Amino acid sequence: MAEYVLPLSRLIESFRKLPGIGGKTAARLAFAVLNMSEEDAAQFAEAILESKTNIHTCPVCCNLSLDGLCPICADVERDGSMICVVETPKDVLAFERVREYRGVYHVLGGVLSPINGISPEQLHIKELFSRLEDDTVKEILIATNPTVEGEATASYLARILKPFGVKLSRLAYGLPVGSDLEYTDEVTLHRAIEGRRPMN
Amino acid sequence: MAEYVLPLSRLIESFRKLPGIGGKTAARLAFAVLNMSEEDAAQFAEAILESKTNIHTCPVCCNLSLDGLCPICADVERDGSMICVVETPKDVLAFERVREYRGVYHVLGGVLSPINGISPEQLHIKELFSRLEDDTVKEILIATNPTVEGEATASYLARILKPFGVKLSRLAYGLPVGSDLEYTDEVTLHRAIEGRRPMN
Repeated sequence: MAEYVLPLSRLIESFRKLPGIGGKTAARLAFAVLNMSEEDAAQFAEAILESKTNIHTCPVCCNLSLDGLCPICADVERDGSMICVVETPKDVLAFERVREYRGVYHVLGGVLSPINGISPEQLHIKELFSRLEDDTVKEILIATNPTVEGEATASYLARILKPFGVKLSRLAYGLPVGSDLEYTDEVTLHRAIEGRRPMN
Repeated sequence: MAEYVLPLSRLIESFRKLPGIGGKTAARLAFAVLNMSEEDAAQFAEAILESKTNIHTCPVCCNLSLDGLCPICADVERDGSMICVVETPKDVLAFERVREYRGVYHVLGGVLSPINGISPEQLHIKELFSRLEDDTVKEILIATNPTVEGEATASYLARILKPFGVKLSRLAYGLPVGSDLEYTDEVTLHRAIEGRRPMN
């Protein structure tokens, strides 16, 4: 036996296909599965299959959806005149946790990244265009991450969305609440000064 | 939608049950599964079920086995008079990689650890005893890890195995090959001095 028994080798291989999981971690996780209860293991396998089979993207906003419209697009109480453009479904969740935003979303599915070969065609940009065909949408809040790639994507979107004549906005930059000026990086502080707001 | 769609939440929960996987990592891995090909996901799920259903422990050495004896116990070319006692199936693999050892193994399934509630009854010790009933076994090499718990387990085993009159041995301590004296910890160096060998 120069290798693990076959089903275990296969399981290790499957774990290794996940991002950030190397050979040793994969083996550790596979052994953990062996030590799981029968029930937990069955649930794990079922959750994989079910996620893969039952989760689709919403035809309107490209967020995750079980079938047809996602719960947010289907909710008539949400304000359809405001679209918040985010990178991933996780970002939608971050916004929803704030409980402040009542508009709808559009999930790009990533950011422009020439190095990784991600061009505009690979993002859900044409789906965003088709939402602008009637005059429902009044404002688009571009909420890509404050990273180099997120910024580039935001600039690109602002440029191609301009002809549609909707109001475009970007999340404010500045000091994170509870942070310390002493430890704030120069770029953030610069942005906070630029974006200073009048006090009454 | 205050939470992820249901199948995804379940998948995240399953990943969280694995050791060392927290909430954020679990979410990252679950999204990676969503982005896998249908085929990879199906293989992943199958590998979990197959590992859980088809992998048993060898009735003799308690190593992993598909059914009946494990390949090593079944191999008539292996020297049944020498048993190497290890903690886990991973340790068997480490020994097999050396290609030097021709004896057989005994997998304890862990180490004694009063803090974690692991007592001798939870380890495969009575299975080891039953291998000593006839006079086949001449030597037992105790190869638990050189940790506090591994040492305690080795001492315990040495004590209870003594009455059987077999030769007992322990792996040598010393400097790892390719290491640097300057960076060797005191305990290891002390053991290397104690275990010094005559040169010709």
